[in-house]
Amino acid sequence: MNRDLDLLGRTIARIGPLDERAMAAARQRQASLTKPAGSLGRLEELAIWAAGVIGDPLPSVERKVIVTAAADHGVAAEGVSAYPQEVTAQMVANFLRGGAAINVVARHVGACVVVVDAGVAAELPAHVNLVSTKMGRGTKNMARGPAMSREQTAASLAAGIELAEAECAGGAQALALGDMGIANTTTAAAVVAAVTGSPTAAVAGRGSGLDDRALAHKVEVIERALAVNRPDPAHPLDVLAKVGGFEFGLLAGVTLGAAAARRPVALDGFPTTAAALIACGLAPAARDYLLASHLSQEPGHRVVLNHLGLRPLLDLGLRLGEGTGAALGLWLLDAAVRLLRDMATFDQAGVSRGHRQVAPQG
Amino acid sequence: MNRDLDLLGRTIARIGPLDERAMAAARQRQASLTKPAGSLGRLEELAIWAAGVIGDPLPSVERKVIVTAAADHGVAAEGVSAYPQEVTAQMVANFLRGGAAINVVARHVGACVVVVDAGVAAELPAHVNLVSTKMGRGTKNMARGPAMSREQTAASLAAGIELAEAECAGGAQALALGDMGIANTTTAAAVVAAVTGSPTAAVAGRGSGLDDRALAHKVEVIERALAVNRPDPAHPLDVLAKVGGFEFGLLAGVTLGAAAARRPVALDGFPTTAAALIACGLAPAARDYLLASHLSQEPGHRVVLNHLGLRPLLDLGLRLGEGTGAALGLWLLDAAVRLLRDMATFDQAGVSRGHRQVAPQG
Repeated sequence: MNRDLDLLGRTIARIGPLDERAMAAARQRQASLTKPAGSLGRLEELAIWAAGVIGDPLPSVERKVIVTAAADHGVAAEGVSAYPQEVTAQMVANFLRGGAAINVVARHVGACVVVVDAGVAAELPAHVNLVSTKMGRGTKNMARGPAMSREQTAASLAAGIELAEAECAGGAQALALGDMGIANTTTAAAVVAAVTGSPTAAVAGRGSGLDDRALAHKVEVIERALAVNRPDPAHPLDVLAKVGGFEFGLLAGVTLGAAAARRPVALDGFPTTAAALIACGLAPAARDYLLASHLSQEPGHRVVLNHLGLRPLLDLGLRLGEGTGAALGLWLLDAAVRLLRDMATFDQAGVSRGHRQVAPQG
Repeated sequence: MNRDLDLLGRTIARIGPLDERAMAAARQRQASLTKPAGSLGRLEELAIWAAGVIGDPLPSVERKVIVTAAADHGVAAEGVSAYPQEVTAQMVANFLRGGAAINVVARHVGACVVVVDAGVAAELPAHVNLVSTKMGRGTKNMARGPAMSREQTAASLAAGIELAEAECAGGAQALALGDMGIANTTTAAAVVAAVTGSPTAAVAGRGSGLDDRALAHKVEVIERALAVNRPDPAHPLDVLAKVGGFEFGLLAGVTLGAAAARRPVALDGFPTTAAALIACGLAPAARDYLLASHLSQEPGHRVVLNHLGLRPLLDLGLRLGEGTGAALGLWLLDAAVRLLRDMATFDQAGVSRGHRQVAPQG
């Protein structure tokens, strides 16, 4: 555990501010490209941001890695999901066979998917494309006590940091977070309610498809988990241990490791953003490395994005998870940096610049 | 001219409703895929829509063509743009060298760009990738009289229909509209004000970067054009001839030709949507073939999208034109249909289905 906490501390210390010089150079280049100033809207801002993250006025995010972390949640025993717990393991198998939504989107985006067993409640057969950082067969039921031990909490964060470091060392230029875990919007709601102080009813949603009665029950379970555990909002590790989960720790660790390596981190929906909230609690500077890819249908997602001060790029009514929305966000980021890098300048193309004031004639 | 009007009439007659059977089959398949029902939000709707457009429950839009039509506008002489008129021809050269934003985005999206000289105010050197449907060296100044003759109007529509037919025959599975023309947001505003009856001030925007004084002048010029020409809102050809432009006619024709060939048509910003408004005035059934890719910063864009009853996919503050936003929209459409086609079903993947009602335990 001390080794894990040391790695965590060293990683947090390595997360610096965005590179203002690279951003200034990128901003200057934007103004020289053959388009009216500002006419590419958020794509211009995105490319300048990527320059600051990566520390390069002409950044590239061609090599994209989506980390899709799966784990189970003891709180599923409370009947908070429309799906049975075995679906987590079944979906991991689907990821490994390439039949899930994230596989289809990743192929379209040109990204690799790293599937992680962060703590699925089943022994998964070894697979060449499955990374195991398994901390247990699902967390404990947070409605009755802490979801994870302190050791598991620190280990899950360290595993995420190490995974991000390995991917960045292997060439990843941008990362995306994905999640799979039956009942993990219940966990996300508990984490976000604990950290932000938002009412549980404002952050609990229908997840994969609850009706009104089941949603009311979910709210009651989350409130019970918060009352039983009393997580300390000032201490992210306490929140993560008591009402978090294995994939939340892993993805928070990936966020910290990627930020320390100066790589953009694309968020997906509610669970991944709750994981990033833990990361930003540990290292506020990590916030500047986050891309809010999309706004989920889950009501808590807007709450946590607002808390982090992030504005989503897409609003397509997605609520699948797996990293699907994050992959789309990474692709738009790639479009933005390619425009910055590859467009001709006014001088190169021999195109006349606009005059700022137009004198009406006649 | 009679030949052109005959082609127009035959094309309009060929535009049928969406294929309800293909849509029902696609809807049924959506429900069988390994994801909670509806969790892919608008991507699910998009794929079902594409099935209806193409008439195939498993549609493909892999082969994408962006038609970027350039032309000049006599009204530029009134000082309504922040850029001089020669920029239209300079940007066509930039398109042909691959240095413009649309080239970069098209490469990223995997689309071809067909660059059309629909009536640029300069003799452009022949180029293997330049399609010429030139109707003249720019339109006449609509602030003093009709922009186009009846012959030019019919010919521009016919040229667009023929271009769409040729592209579809050549394998295009989806088309996107792009525009380039100094002063063409002035033309778009005049067309939209004429057809929808919206106040000119509500549809005139800053285009490529006007200040307040120049914007007020632009409004005054548009009002003069409408007063001088008195276009008949009930007759799209009258509106197009009097206050439209060559690329508007061409793109309206492409819309009609693509709809008749059952291909999705992705709109870009304000000028392309104004062109589609003309197409829908001629053939109301064409409306169902349109994809509203994004919401432009130009205020008139929202007005015309609302008038057509279309909800934009993206809101990125774009206002460049060229087809850039349309290309991004086509790519999202491609993502949507790939998800429909390529995801595993619950049965294939051995994944348990959700139960609709969750019985709270304990």
